[in-house]
Amino acid sequence: MCEANAYLKKSEEENLMVMENVYNLKPEGGKILLENIFGEQKLIDAEIHHISLMEHKIILQPKAS
Amino acid sequence: MCEANAYLKKSEEENLMVMENVYNLKPEGGKILLENIFGEQKLIDAEIHHISLMEHKIILQPKAS
Repeated sequence: MCEANAYLKKSEEENLMVMENVYNLKPEGGKILLENIFGEQKLIDAEIHHISLMEHKIILQPKAS
Repeated sequence: MCEANAYLKKSEEENLMVMENVYNLKPEGGKILLENIFGEQKLIDAEIHHISLMEHKIILQPKAS
């Protein structure tokens, strides 16, 4: 399986895990909808910072307010 | 390996493949930078429509002009 874990970027050094085993990601109304393999969904008020499929990481950046 | 293929959405039914074996994706200056396992990069003038890690697909949407 090729799911990734999603993290919210807190600082240069620190990422906060927001969801494990994400298999689906969709921008929706300016937010990011994540779905995991258990059917759970989370709508995160953030933008995509980068996605590394090699590291299985989705890094989200909180929106500049 | 968990790379995905990247497609540009042409219509509801049609997607155009833009890069195979993508392992890294990064929004950059309003565009999407894709990198594949061969070290190739492509900067696509598009937004992320959705990403399905289960189907190994990155679907990009050309920007509304």
